[in-house]
Amino acid sequence: MGEFELIRHYFAAASCARAGEGVALGIGDDCALLELPAGEQLAISTDTLVSGVHFPESPDPFLLAQRALAVSVSDLAAMGATPLGFTLALTLPSAEADWLEAFARGLDRMAQQCAIRLIGGDTTRGPLSLTLTVFGRVPQGQALTRAGAQVGDLLCVGGELGDASGALPLVLGQRQAEPAIAEPLLARYWSPVPQLELGLALRGKATAALDISDGLLADCGHIAAASGVALLIEQARVPLSAALQAFVDTPTAYECALSGGDDYRLAFTLPPQYLADLQAAGWPLRVIGRVAAGQGVWLLDADGAPVQAAHSGYQHFEASSD
Amino acid sequence: MGEFELIRHYFAAASCARAGEGVALGIGDDCALLELPAGEQLAISTDTLVSGVHFPESPDPFLLAQRALAVSVSDLAAMGATPLGFTLALTLPSAEADWLEAFARGLDRMAQQCAIRLIGGDTTRGPLSLTLTVFGRVPQGQALTRAGAQVGDLLCVGGELGDASGALPLVLGQRQAEPAIAEPLLARYWSPVPQLELGLALRGKATAALDISDGLLADCGHIAAASGVALLIEQARVPLSAALQAFVDTPTAYECALSGGDDYRLAFTLPPQYLADLQAAGWPLRVIGRVAAGQGVWLLDADGAPVQAAHSGYQHFEASSD
Repeated sequence: MGEFELIRHYFAAASCARAGEGVALGIGDDCALLELPAGEQLAISTDTLVSGVHFPESPDPFLLAQRALAVSVSDLAAMGATPLGFTLALTLPSAEADWLEAFARGLDRMAQQCAIRLIGGDTTRGPLSLTLTVFGRVPQGQALTRAGAQVGDLLCVGGELGDASGALPLVLGQRQAEPAIAEPLLARYWSPVPQLELGLALRGKATAALDISDGLLADCGHIAAASGVALLIEQARVPLSAALQAFVDTPTAYECALSGGDDYRLAFTLPPQYLADLQAAGWPLRVIGRVAAGQGVWLLDADGAPVQAAHSGYQHFEASSD
Repeated sequence: MGEFELIRHYFAAASCARAGEGVALGIGDDCALLELPAGEQLAISTDTLVSGVHFPESPDPFLLAQRALAVSVSDLAAMGATPLGFTLALTLPSAEADWLEAFARGLDRMAQQCAIRLIGGDTTRGPLSLTLTVFGRVPQGQALTRAGAQVGDLLCVGGELGDASGALPLVLGQRQAEPAIAEPLLARYWSPVPQLELGLALRGKATAALDISDGLLADCGHIAAASGVALLIEQARVPLSAALQAFVDTPTAYECALSGGDDYRLAFTLPPQYLADLQAAGWPLRVIGRVAAGQGVWLLDADGAPVQAAHSGYQHFEASSD
C-alpha cells in the first residue's frame, strides 16, 4: 500500500470525526481550506513529540495518538478557543498496518472527545515523531493570552497537579503499583483531558492563562514575564491527588506538582469578584496564590512568607538554566 | 541558553519578515492568532522533511531552511493562495549557535522572498527533522483544487522540469560539474521558487492545479483521479533545461522530468481560451498535453498515440507500487 492509500485508509475515521463545520476542504488536496465566522480569529498551535524524548520508545500506538492530540488541543483550551481542525505530520520507521490501525483509533477517540477534525497532514519515513498543528476559533479580542495578569488577581489552577510526571516510573516500567493507584496516574499521563470548557468559561474573566506543560513554576514564570508582575504561590494550596500521595512521599509529590510538567491543566489569573460564580458553577478550579507587584514566581511558606524565587521546569536543551 | 531564549533569539528576524497583516498575535503564547478578511478562506498545508530521507545528512543549514520553507509555500501557490504565516517545528540533535544562526538566516531570506511570517513553532531534541505548516488566504470559492479538470482543457506546467532530481548526484557529492551546469541545477534543488504569482494569475482560469513534488506523472495522476478524467502528456513537449541536458543524457533527462519529483512548479489544466492572454502577459507556462475522457495519465509518442499508461513517482513507503 502506498503513502496515499495508507493515509486515506487509516485516517478516514478521524478525518470525519466532525462533519463540516468550518472545514471547506479536508484531506487530499495541496491545502485544506478553513472558514471563520465573521468577528472571530483563528488560534493556531504546533507541538512536536519525539520518541524517547517526549514519550517512551515503542509506545502503545493507541495511547500515543490520544496523548499527542490531547497535548496539542490543550493549547486551544488555554486560549479559550473552540477546536476546528488539526493537521498531523507523522514520521514512522516503517508502515505497519496493526500499528497504524491502533494509532488511528486512538486519534479518532480523542478527536471525537475534543470535537476536532483531521484536515490534512503528511506521512514520512524516519525516526518516530509526530507534529500536530491545531486550529481553533475565538471571538476577536477574547483570546486568553499570558499578558494580562493584574496585581490583586488570584492565581488558580484547573485541578490536581503532578500526576503525569509522578506516573513516569509506571510509564517506563520501572515501578509497579496496585490498579487503584496505577490506573489514575497512567491515565493522567496517556490521556490528559484538555480543559476546553473551562477555557470557554474563563473568557472575559481570566486576565491571563496557559496550560501547564513544562511544570507549574516554569509556566507561571511565563505569565509573570508576559504580564510584568510577580506570582506568589502557597505550596500548601497546590492540589495533589490521592493516587499521587499514595504512590510517592510528600516532598516528591510536591516536586512533581511544582516542576514535573505534562499536567495539561489550565493555570490562570482571576480577578477575585469572579471566583464565587465559577465555583458555584462547579468548575474544578483551585486557588493557589495571587498576583503581586514585582517579577518572577515566589513560593510561600506556611506563614505566607516568600522562601525562594522559584523557576524551574522541563527544558529541551539542557546546556544552561535559562 | 534555554529553549525559549534560543527560539526568540535566532528566529526573531524571520518572525518579523512581514509586520502585522493578518497576524494578531505571533510567537510566544499558547497559540498564534490569525485574522482573515471577510469573504476569504484560510489555506493550510503541512510538510515534514526528515534528514537522510528528504535531504542529505548534515546539510548546509542556510540551504535547508530555504528549501524547507519554499517546499511548503509551494502548496499555497498551488491553491492560488496569498501567504499569511507559518509555524516551524524543528527537531535537532543539539542546539548549536552557528547552525541555528545560519538556519535562521536561510529561513528569513525565503520568508522575505515569499512575504510570509513565522508565527509560532516548537523546538525539540531528537533526530534532525522539520515540519512546517503554512497558512494563506484565498477568496471564497476561488481556490485552485485538483478536482475541476474538464475534457478539452490544455495541460500546462510552470516551466522546465527535472532539474532538482537531476541535481541529486551533485547534492550528494557523487558527481561534479562545471559551475555553468552545477549552479543552476543545485539552485533548483536547494532554493526552488514557489510560483505564487502564477497561482494568483490562474485564479478563475485554471480548472485544476497542484505543485509537482512527487513527479509529473504521479502528480498528474492526482488531478486525473480527483477530476475523473484522463490526462494525455506529449513527452516531446515536456520542457527540459539546457543545464539538465548538458548534465545527463536525454532518456535520463526525461526520466527526471517525468518521475523525479521535487520540481515545485505548478501543473494545471486550462481552458484553451485563456492561453493567449496568459502567454502575452509573460507567464512561463508550457503546454504539455490535454484533458480527455477516461482515466489515468497517458504518455503519447511523437505521433500523438498513447504508448503507455503512466503513473510513477516518489513513494515514502516502498513496500508496494501503489
